[in-house]
Amino acid sequence: MAHIDLKNDLPGIRGPMAFRPETAKPLNELAEILLRDDNNTLTRGERELIGAYVSSLNDCFFCQNVHGAMAQHYMQCDMQLIDDIKNDFQSTPISEKLKSLLSIAKSVQKGGKHVTAEQTEEARKHGATDREIHDAVLIAAAFCMYNRYVDGLATWAPADRQVYIERAPRRAAEGYIDFDLYK
Amino acid sequence: MAHIDLKNDLPGIRGPMAFRPETAKPLNELAEILLRDDNNTLTRGERELIGAYVSSLNDCFFCQNVHGAMAQHYMQCDMQLIDDIKNDFQSTPISEKLKSLLSIAKSVQKGGKHVTAEQTEEARKHGATDREIHDAVLIAAAFCMYNRYVDGLATWAPADRQVYIERAPRRAAEGYIDFDLYK
Repeated sequence: MAHIDLKNDLPGIRGPMAFRPETAKPLNELAEILLRDDNNTLTRGERELIGAYVSSLNDCFFCQNVHGAMAQHYMQCDMQLIDDIKNDFQSTPISEKLKSLLSIAKSVQKGGKHVTAEQTEEARKHGATDREIHDAVLIAAAFCMYNRYVDGLATWAPADRQVYIERAPRRAAEGYIDFDLYK
Repeated sequence: MAHIDLKNDLPGIRGPMAFRPETAKPLNELAEILLRDDNNTLTRGERELIGAYVSSLNDCFFCQNVHGAMAQHYMQCDMQLIDDIKNDFQSTPISEKLKSLLSIAKSVQKGGKHVTAEQTEEARKHGATDREIHDAVLIAAAFCMYNRYVDGLATWAPADRQVYIERAPRRAAEGYIDFDLYK
């Protein structure tokens, strides 16, 4: 049971977002720009993966499954690859650039000061631009917020991972700006 | 030196915000609604204090000084009280309700699952509403993002704390929506 009466039975972040639509608006707009906006040299799959990875480090079941399924949808891969990346991305067949950005995200999750100049240098060596590094840092930081919002209020989440996989195509098509929330 | 070339010499979060105004917009809108919007039963001072406290737990010099100065400005108190609250809020003469919300914020900073039903029950006992508990959780979560954004990119910050105190009245008057960023 959630720590507060959310006045709805929506799962995960959707519960507090419907409870407080004024704050949901910028939260959703941030997700839309960071994760889905096409004016970005990181693919949607890469950005969702960073979010799913940080959510797994923060042990947030809802977010890691929502965004893991989104990454899988965009990357057109098996969920096993997403799980392997969450467990040990260095041993997976993803690009060295993406590995270097996940490494930065891993440090951000611990705390901003854990990111080192060596890490950002490594990312640049593998072709990452300053804006890609910026976005990796902000995606990781933003999920440190979303995860705490979801679990800090003790929201519920569907236990069946298939639910998230089946929902991903619709979320990909519709995006994160849920105008129904603001009516 | 920042980890990326921000193309400006603005301090703290203002540097990456000017570098990437598309994400700055929802980040600022979130701060405005959470910290400054008057449709809130928590005072501006109480909300800024929660942000300053979480920023001190995250050891973010820029954010704890910006928002500590904002709290001091709204609360019309000495900076010593703000510092005492950051060091050990339980021993300060603030309300039991605010103490209970700071206790929740402290748990959120560690991770969402650290918040307990006992803590939210305690907050309610001291008069906190569900929306106040919601906002305390989201403010704490949001500062876990802002702090990581500021330090994860290794931005610079004025070392003189007086700078933040002198800037606070203008920020209070103008708010967090800096339209100049989006021109």
